[in-house]
Amino acid sequence: MAKLVECVPNFSLSKEKDPAGYQALVDVANSVPGCTLFDAQTDGNHNRSVFTMIGSPAAIEEVAFQLTKRASELIDMNKHKGEHSRMGATDVIPFIPTVDVTVQECVEMSKRLGQRIWDELKIPSFLYEDSATSPDRVNLANVRKGQFEGMPEKLLQPEWAPDFGERKIHPTAGITAIGARMPLVAFNVNLATSDVTIAKKIAKVIRASSGGFKCCKAMGFMLEDRGIAQVSMNMVNYEVTPLYVVYEMIRTLAERYGTYIVGSELVGLTPAKALLDCADFYLKLENFDCHNQVMEYHLIGE
Amino acid sequence: MAKLVECVPNFSLSKEKDPAGYQALVDVANSVPGCTLFDAQTDGNHNRSVFTMIGSPAAIEEVAFQLTKRASELIDMNKHKGEHSRMGATDVIPFIPTVDVTVQECVEMSKRLGQRIWDELKIPSFLYEDSATSPDRVNLANVRKGQFEGMPEKLLQPEWAPDFGERKIHPTAGITAIGARMPLVAFNVNLATSDVTIAKKIAKVIRASSGGFKCCKAMGFMLEDRGIAQVSMNMVNYEVTPLYVVYEMIRTLAERYGTYIVGSELVGLTPAKALLDCADFYLKLENFDCHNQVMEYHLIGE
Repeated sequence: MAKLVECVPNFSLSKEKDPAGYQALVDVANSVPGCTLFDAQTDGNHNRSVFTMIGSPAAIEEVAFQLTKRASELIDMNKHKGEHSRMGATDVIPFIPTVDVTVQECVEMSKRLGQRIWDELKIPSFLYEDSATSPDRVNLANVRKGQFEGMPEKLLQPEWAPDFGERKIHPTAGITAIGARMPLVAFNVNLATSDVTIAKKIAKVIRASSGGFKCCKAMGFMLEDRGIAQVSMNMVNYEVTPLYVVYEMIRTLAERYGTYIVGSELVGLTPAKALLDCADFYLKLENFDCHNQVMEYHLIGE
Repeated sequence: MAKLVECVPNFSLSKEKDPAGYQALVDVANSVPGCTLFDAQTDGNHNRSVFTMIGSPAAIEEVAFQLTKRASELIDMNKHKGEHSRMGATDVIPFIPTVDVTVQECVEMSKRLGQRIWDELKIPSFLYEDSATSPDRVNLANVRKGQFEGMPEKLLQPEWAPDFGERKIHPTAGITAIGARMPLVAFNVNLATSDVTIAKKIAKVIRASSGGFKCCKAMGFMLEDRGIAQVSMNMVNYEVTPLYVVYEMIRTLAERYGTYIVGSELVGLTPAKALLDCADFYLKLENFDCHNQVMEYHLIGE
C-alpha cells in the first residue's frame, strides 16, 4: 500500500477577486505527479482559498513548495484585504497523515519545507501544531495574532523569532505557518432530551479543557429544529482518544441524567480507521490488523 | 471514485508441475492496464492455481477472457490429474463486486464473458451463484459434479445444457463455470465456555440452513488450544445479513446459555464496508454515507 499525506494550504487570494491568480494556483496544484487536488474552496469575503490535496509524501512536499513559490509571485500582502485573519501569501500549510504515515513523518516534512522556503524564497515561517517548537506555537491563532500588519513588530519580540529565516517578514509574501496535525473528526451525539444543560454537563466531563479526554473538544448545544440537545465534538486525534471511548462515556452520563443517545453524526470527511477502530471495539475483534485484513487498504494508492 | 471488481479465476495447472505454463498465465494477468494481480496461489497436489485480481469492470472482464484463452492453449484436460474437483482448463471464474459495483453488474459481466468465450474460443460454460439461470446451478459443487471426465454425458441430460455453447465440452479445455457472488466474510465468535454444545446450538439458530439468517453459514467448534468453544461463520452476503446482526444474536444466545462472548476474529480479507456498517450500527450514526464521508473512499482507484 502507498503512503498518503493530505495537505490543506490556505492562500490569501480568491477566485472572485483574482480569477487569473486563482487559476494559476490550481494549475500548480495539478502539475505535480503523484498528487491529486481534491477540492478547492474560495471565498471572496475572506479573500482566501483553501486547497485539499492528497498524494505521496514526496509529491505533497514538492507541490506545497511550488504553490508557496507561485503564491509569492502572485500576491502582495500589502494590498490584501479580507475578513479572515492572515499573515502571508501562503498563510498556513498543514500536513495531515492519511494512510500509513505517522505524524512524526509529517513533522519532518514541515521542517524540510520551512527550511526550503527560506533558502529558496526568503520567506520566513513558524512551525505550529505537532511541529511546534514551543507550547505557545501549537495554536495557530496564537501564532497568527497581529496578522500581516503586526508581524514586523511581533518578530522582534524575544519569544517570536521565526523557526526558519530572519526576524523580518518577506516584503510582499509575509510569513507562513507550517505544521503537522492529525485529521480532525467532527462527531456529534444527539440525546433524547430537550434539556440542553444535560448536553453541557456531559460536554464538560468529556472535554480535555475541563479535565476530560485528552484529544476531545466538546460543547453542549440545542438542536432547535428537532427540539433535542446535542454534544458536539471535535476529536483532534482519534488514535489517542477513540470515538467509541467518548461515545460510551456519553452513554453512561446520559443514563445518569435519565436520558439516552438517539443517534450520532459525522460531519465532513472521516478517516476509515477511526470507524474501523469502533467495529474492532464493539465486535471484540482479536488481533485485528486493518492493513492486512481490510480489502480496500490493498487498493489505496495503487 | 473508481468502480472496482475482484476476480478469482481457478486454473487447472500448478507452478510445481508446469512452471512455464504458470508463468505464462501470470504474464497475461499482468498484461491488462487497469487490473492488478494481487495474489497467485498454486498447489501441486491439487494441480491448480488461483489468481486474485482487482481492477475496473472492463479491465477485469478483458483479463478474464485473455486468461481463459491462454489457459485453453496451455492445458489439455485429458492429461490433467489433481486432487481438486475440476471440469475445465479455466475451471471457474467468479466476479466479486468490491467498490461501487452491484452484484447485478457482475452478473452482466459473467454473461458477456460466457458468450465471448463461446464465440471466440468455442468453450461452453455454466453460469453459477448469483448468475445462475436455475436454482440447481447456484451451487458450484452441483454444477461441477461429474468433473471433466463425466461432463460429455452430463451435458446430454435435459436439465444440464450449458448456458453458453453446445451440449459438448471443448475437447481439451472442457467447460467453465462463470458467476457473480458477493465477497465472503469469514467471521468467528469465541465464547467463554469449554462446552462446545453451546456453540453448536447457537450455530444452529443463526445459520440459514436450519432456519436462521439468510446469508449466514455457521458451525460450532472447539478451539482445543484455548479450551473454548467457537461459532465459526461464513457470511456470504454482509449486506443482506450484517455482521452486527449475527454478533448481537450470538450475544443474546450466549447469555441465555449462561456464557458470554470473549472475542471474535476475521479470517482473510474483509471489505471495509462490512465493518463500517458495524461502526454505523453501534455509534447509531444518522444519515451515514461512507462514499461521501470516509476519506479513503475518495482515494481508491485514483
